[in-house]
Amino acid sequence: MKLADRLENLGTETAFAVSLAAAEWGAKGNRIFPFHLGDLNLPTSQNIVDAMNKAIAAGKTGYCPGAGIPQLREALAANVGGDRGLNFGPENVVVQPGGKPVITKFIQTIMNAGDEVFYPNPGYPIYESQIEYFGGVAVPYRYVPTGTGFSIDLDQIKASITPKTKAIVYNDLQNPNGAESTDAEREAIAEIAIKNNLWVLSDEAYFEMRYEGKSKSIAALPGMAERTVILYTFSKKFAMTGWRLGAAIAPKTIADQIAKLNTNDESCTTHFVQYAGVEAVTGDQSGIPVMLNTLKHRRDVALELLRQMPGVQVHTPEAGFYLFPDVTEAMANKGITDLADFATQALHATGVSFTTRRHFGRPQPGEKEQYIRLAFSGIDASDISDGLKLMGEWIAN
Amino acid sequence: MKLADRLENLGTETAFAVSLAAAEWGAKGNRIFPFHLGDLNLPTSQNIVDAMNKAIAAGKTGYCPGAGIPQLREALAANVGGDRGLNFGPENVVVQPGGKPVITKFIQTIMNAGDEVFYPNPGYPIYESQIEYFGGVAVPYRYVPTGTGFSIDLDQIKASITPKTKAIVYNDLQNPNGAESTDAEREAIAEIAIKNNLWVLSDEAYFEMRYEGKSKSIAALPGMAERTVILYTFSKKFAMTGWRLGAAIAPKTIADQIAKLNTNDESCTTHFVQYAGVEAVTGDQSGIPVMLNTLKHRRDVALELLRQMPGVQVHTPEAGFYLFPDVTEAMANKGITDLADFATQALHATGVSFTTRRHFGRPQPGEKEQYIRLAFSGIDASDISDGLKLMGEWIAN
Repeated sequence: MKLADRLENLGTETAFAVSLAAAEWGAKGNRIFPFHLGDLNLPTSQNIVDAMNKAIAAGKTGYCPGAGIPQLREALAANVGGDRGLNFGPENVVVQPGGKPVITKFIQTIMNAGDEVFYPNPGYPIYESQIEYFGGVAVPYRYVPTGTGFSIDLDQIKASITPKTKAIVYNDLQNPNGAESTDAEREAIAEIAIKNNLWVLSDEAYFEMRYEGKSKSIAALPGMAERTVILYTFSKKFAMTGWRLGAAIAPKTIADQIAKLNTNDESCTTHFVQYAGVEAVTGDQSGIPVMLNTLKHRRDVALELLRQMPGVQVHTPEAGFYLFPDVTEAMANKGITDLADFATQALHATGVSFTTRRHFGRPQPGEKEQYIRLAFSGIDASDISDGLKLMGEWIAN
Repeated sequence: MKLADRLENLGTETAFAVSLAAAEWGAKGNRIFPFHLGDLNLPTSQNIVDAMNKAIAAGKTGYCPGAGIPQLREALAANVGGDRGLNFGPENVVVQPGGKPVITKFIQTIMNAGDEVFYPNPGYPIYESQIEYFGGVAVPYRYVPTGTGFSIDLDQIKASITPKTKAIVYNDLQNPNGAESTDAEREAIAEIAIKNNLWVLSDEAYFEMRYEGKSKSIAALPGMAERTVILYTFSKKFAMTGWRLGAAIAPKTIADQIAKLNTNDESCTTHFVQYAGVEAVTGDQSGIPVMLNTLKHRRDVALELLRQMPGVQVHTPEAGFYLFPDVTEAMANKGITDLADFATQALHATGVSFTTRRHFGRPQPGEKEQYIRLAFSGIDASDISDGLKLMGEWIAN
């Protein structure tokens, strides 16, 4: 019996194959340095766990409203709005089992089959997957190296707009390349959206995960709040990836539809986990700077060792937990032409496991540089040091 | 800016309006008897909560595989297969955030736009909503009263099959009407599915919630396992509705696609909740008969009082936690012609809150009987007694 045709357009995260390869190599007795994980190896704060257990003891084990418990919707409206200089009410907040569900629900809510939607490439692979799965045309936009990071190719976006263009997916503090927009770039994206009457999905998964400076939301620019859906997640800021808790922060018309999708798709997000979320947002915040310091130290250890590797160039991301080194020259030096081959050889020679640019979308025409992504969220500083020293020796020889 | 056209085909659970009306009436100082809740007011067993906390303490707060942790997939394969006389492996089990996600993922996996899918009407409203949302034609099948319950109108199904028919949604131990198939009826459904090469979604949410007899799965009939997806949920059996934990038990080809949808839609189900699921399935089972005894007592208290009401007829369901009284004559006696009006008048006169047949699909042509649904899962026996006595007086006068 044939399955549904739409499945032919469903993508996935191919990075799971990297986890598998690392696990298999590790199972043969080799030491693995897991730079491929976009996950945190840090515990969730005890006050958050305690709040969850208090909710269970109080009987919060039954169903709750599809859009989320009022307390969490109110707490997020105040917190997310306050951090961005925006005024949200609980009617703008729809709780989700993680940040990721916001992607599919945004696409389902605003895009018809045949519509065109811009998405960052390289970028989180689920954007492209969901646009195409629901019959849209995924139109990639590229990043160009600036010497200190990456900037969005605004000319490419402007040249690609058609009457069918419906939305832009925008991921400031980007995964995988760590790019952060200048004010001018963010304003230019907003101008494009307003001029062409586009919806914007602002994926702000890494908004609070920063080591210098202050994050800004495109939703806070004039004329943007009414056309922007913010993807908010507890995963990173509170080390809660496996808890599956996030929210869509959206204009009410969109929020209402996303809540209706919740009722259809999963009834509600785990009831007592939402009380943990209230504590995370409103309770003791002292765990966050501690975690950020840990991550910053890891970043700096990794950057120093990467910069000692011949033929490797890497910028310093002020946010997120990914490094995106350009290894074009290092590959040439080693006589390796294929990026996947480079990753496999590095794994087998050194135990260092990482994803590459290929796990974040099909390369764009004319793209010559070769990049790998190293996540420093799931590996301790001492292992970072041991692993990257081995990798440095392998690259140099 | 216009939203997506597909939203026009998205249904919902209108029963939430009943909760709201009850809450509003209660807020005015009236005592409410909540028979409208398809939820349990019973606690989850402590051993299950303890297993979750043990997992959190062991660091199970990060991501896990999209299809679920291997331990839970293995435990469910053994448990669900064992209870049904079927041989499942972990590759047949895809963990979900609740039972409900199995509905949308089944539809997405097997149905093309334009395909026809049978669904029970009255029935759980999300079947119809998801079939139509993904562009299918939702073809209802009816139940006919038998004196001791309801039977499926097999002739209606046979007469409605076309070359476009793709699947049957089958909900034995039915919500809302409590119907259970005879062996002959279940075999007839299987025969129709095999003869016409149809997929079957077997919603087995109430499989273990029974007071007499033993449940059977249509998947266990010859030729059915390879065409059936079982909706399994922890919600009822373990009083875990708000935990959001369930699974699709499916042929591997379907399971693989559903796992890919998981990766796109929500990454994974809450990691540590899955360890609670392992304990629920493999640990101490002594809480289950205690809960079933409590529910059986409630059922019997409600049945006795309902049967004293003039113009009310109700059969004894052996499973589930819903009563589905025929109130046609009672309505006529009271001069009420509209079912929604009957519910509102009952609420305002007595505080008894319930859903009606209308919350479970559009009435079918020729349907004359009027039904209401009373859930006895979210209300204690003493409140059942108090509420239904008041309702009896109101109906008799």
